[in-house]
Amino acid sequence: MHRVNFDYAAAAPLAPEAYEAMKPFLTEHFGNPQSIHSLADKPREAMETARSQVAALVNASPSEMVFTSCASESNNLAIKGLIQANRESRRHIVVSSIEHQSVLRPVEALAKAGFEVTRLGVDEHGLIRLDELESAIRPDTALVSVMHANNEIGTIEPLAEIAEVCRKHKVLLHSDGTAAVGRMPVDVNSLGCDSYSFAAQSFYGPKGAAVLYLKTGIRPRPLIEGGVQEKGRRAGTEDVPAIVGMGEAAAIALESLPEWSDRMTRLGRRMFAELPKRLERIILTGHPENRLPGHVSLCVEFVEGEGMLLFLDDNGIAVASGSACTAKTLKASHVLLAIGLPHAIAQSSLMLTMSKDTTDEEVDYFLAKLPPIVERLRKMSPLYAKLLKGEDPYETKQESCNGGH
Amino acid sequence: MHRVNFDYAAAAPLAPEAYEAMKPFLTEHFGNPQSIHSLADKPREAMETARSQVAALVNASPSEMVFTSCASESNNLAIKGLIQANRESRRHIVVSSIEHQSVLRPVEALAKAGFEVTRLGVDEHGLIRLDELESAIRPDTALVSVMHANNEIGTIEPLAEIAEVCRKHKVLLHSDGTAAVGRMPVDVNSLGCDSYSFAAQSFYGPKGAAVLYLKTGIRPRPLIEGGVQEKGRRAGTEDVPAIVGMGEAAAIALESLPEWSDRMTRLGRRMFAELPKRLERIILTGHPENRLPGHVSLCVEFVEGEGMLLFLDDNGIAVASGSACTAKTLKASHVLLAIGLPHAIAQSSLMLTMSKDTTDEEVDYFLAKLPPIVERLRKMSPLYAKLLKGEDPYETKQESCNGGH
Repeated sequence: MHRVNFDYAAAAPLAPEAYEAMKPFLTEHFGNPQSIHSLADKPREAMETARSQVAALVNASPSEMVFTSCASESNNLAIKGLIQANRESRRHIVVSSIEHQSVLRPVEALAKAGFEVTRLGVDEHGLIRLDELESAIRPDTALVSVMHANNEIGTIEPLAEIAEVCRKHKVLLHSDGTAAVGRMPVDVNSLGCDSYSFAAQSFYGPKGAAVLYLKTGIRPRPLIEGGVQEKGRRAGTEDVPAIVGMGEAAAIALESLPEWSDRMTRLGRRMFAELPKRLERIILTGHPENRLPGHVSLCVEFVEGEGMLLFLDDNGIAVASGSACTAKTLKASHVLLAIGLPHAIAQSSLMLTMSKDTTDEEVDYFLAKLPPIVERLRKMSPLYAKLLKGEDPYETKQESCNGGH
Repeated sequence: MHRVNFDYAAAAPLAPEAYEAMKPFLTEHFGNPQSIHSLADKPREAMETARSQVAALVNASPSEMVFTSCASESNNLAIKGLIQANRESRRHIVVSSIEHQSVLRPVEALAKAGFEVTRLGVDEHGLIRLDELESAIRPDTALVSVMHANNEIGTIEPLAEIAEVCRKHKVLLHSDGTAAVGRMPVDVNSLGCDSYSFAAQSFYGPKGAAVLYLKTGIRPRPLIEGGVQEKGRRAGTEDVPAIVGMGEAAAIALESLPEWSDRMTRLGRRMFAELPKRLERIILTGHPENRLPGHVSLCVEFVEGEGMLLFLDDNGIAVASGSACTAKTLKASHVLLAIGLPHAIAQSSLMLTMSKDTTDEEVDYFLAKLPPIVERLRKMSPLYAKLLKGEDPYETKQESCNGGH
């Protein structure tokens, strides 16, 4: 069967060059970089090379890179760690309402522990409003957290402007860059955030390797405490093979990203333009222009996302509905609700993420396969039946609760 | 040059079978186990197979295994997570004074946050005293943490008896099993602790894979919060290749451990018996009988540990001085101080850890190489010069501070 992957955000293949770079550290050079004897030499050198390679990808200094095991760990370290390292008197957090769960859950935990949280709304395209951010910041605000780009709807936030507002008010800014890195060039230095998370998987590096960028001088309380690794910012024996693979993948990405980015942008735009021609009653979600290369997100009215996903899978096409991490909660996506979609429509979401190797043929294949699947599923939908009868499919008996006016 | 490794606790080579098992997941089957489409199938199945394999190694249920990225993460999750999940009124922690830093540091952080901490002393062999433990437990004790075996001096603690005391007083018991697993058979079920940490590296699995055993019903607050992975006990995209490698390594270890253990026990005992015949003024540290197979620890009077380590390295021999994680702090080992050694002697420690493949020839090589190195270093020691002159090398001018009596 023809197999087409449009779910590269969930997992991407490891770059063969990255795997080659890892091999000696999975076999011969197995030493612990912290040892004082010479078995540590090669692993330690390779790890520091990787640190430079990864730093270069986001235009940071090697000393600003903290290696972690996944982007969720990076986000937890940033949110909990920066709050804990802050002055006691600062008890307020500002967070966008469309953050990933690995930001939202730690913030919820802090709310339970007595912190006040302001959740910033977004417009219909998922963009933060700068004036709303500015008025949310208080003298006791400890931290602002706004992601660089949204994983579900692809919208790129105005991070440099957000950082400027935070800097003006002397408030720390964390940004989750997991969806952005590997799809678009990222320069943390010019963006101006204080911490920034990303994972190796986003640029064809291995699982088990991620980073928290911490601007020089920014020092969260460590999440994993113990040994002296990562200059005390993250304890635990370093996963040298994964770190080395991440470094090699970063070096390739630094060079190739402009090309990858252009290609994915073109294919994403093509898909975005074609979909409304092939399907009626769909809603393209996220920002039409300021969006991640190779990211297409939509809601298909009168159809459950999961149904489409399973039928597409039967046709050899892998896509996601909502984020890979929250899909199993069966709740409507908090991101789609935040951009103002009603529950029923939010349940009908599809998210497509391309890779550097995605082709026009794969786009065509998807565009050919989706419409008959949607048609088949809509035939089972009582709401769609109402539409065909000329009735308003979303009209419910709710009016009677409004007092009969 | 002849290269001999006696520092397998710092890092062990990956079992070739484990690497073979990982390969398909580093190449072909790169999917995210949480996806709903079929790219997730192989990774998810392989991960659950690994869960069963790892559980079998310690006689636990697969559902009791939480996969983490390193033993330090497991210890942090257990200590911080169990305390946070406990009743507010329980504000007391009991911890042995010879725990690894990844237990001690989180406990110190909790102490700063207002928890009361009782640090249990150990006898000259590093054993916890059960009566001291029992009297330390109070009605408001939330958690006891005692490691299964000590990484620096090899002493195996009476964990089953410790668990019995904790159970009697209805207090949770966490145990750090990092040094024990892979050297001796471990049955968490019969030991009776509530949580137990270990890492894949200890049994020739990959870096980046570790476990927190959580007895059914025990649920710490997660350290890394976000997605639904590990049933909400640890968020973040799973490092499938590392987990699969850990599973395969566990399956091999389960079968071979009795043989490995016997071999390491024999070689460790031989080394232990030979050392005092070849070197005067050495102190074999840890328990002479209840100690980890293949673990030899000693202090060599009048010599710095680091000096020996570097000269041994020049002779192709890798050893550790103190734990790999704390070696770089240059502080005297808290473990050696806890067993009553003075600072000067604690700085002269060597720790040797063998592997399943260590040979008699390697033991002979070490036994031949160490004495001339010690002799050479002692020639530089003013304390040793005093000894040769028949004076007490440790006599200092301290008496004058005692009031001149």
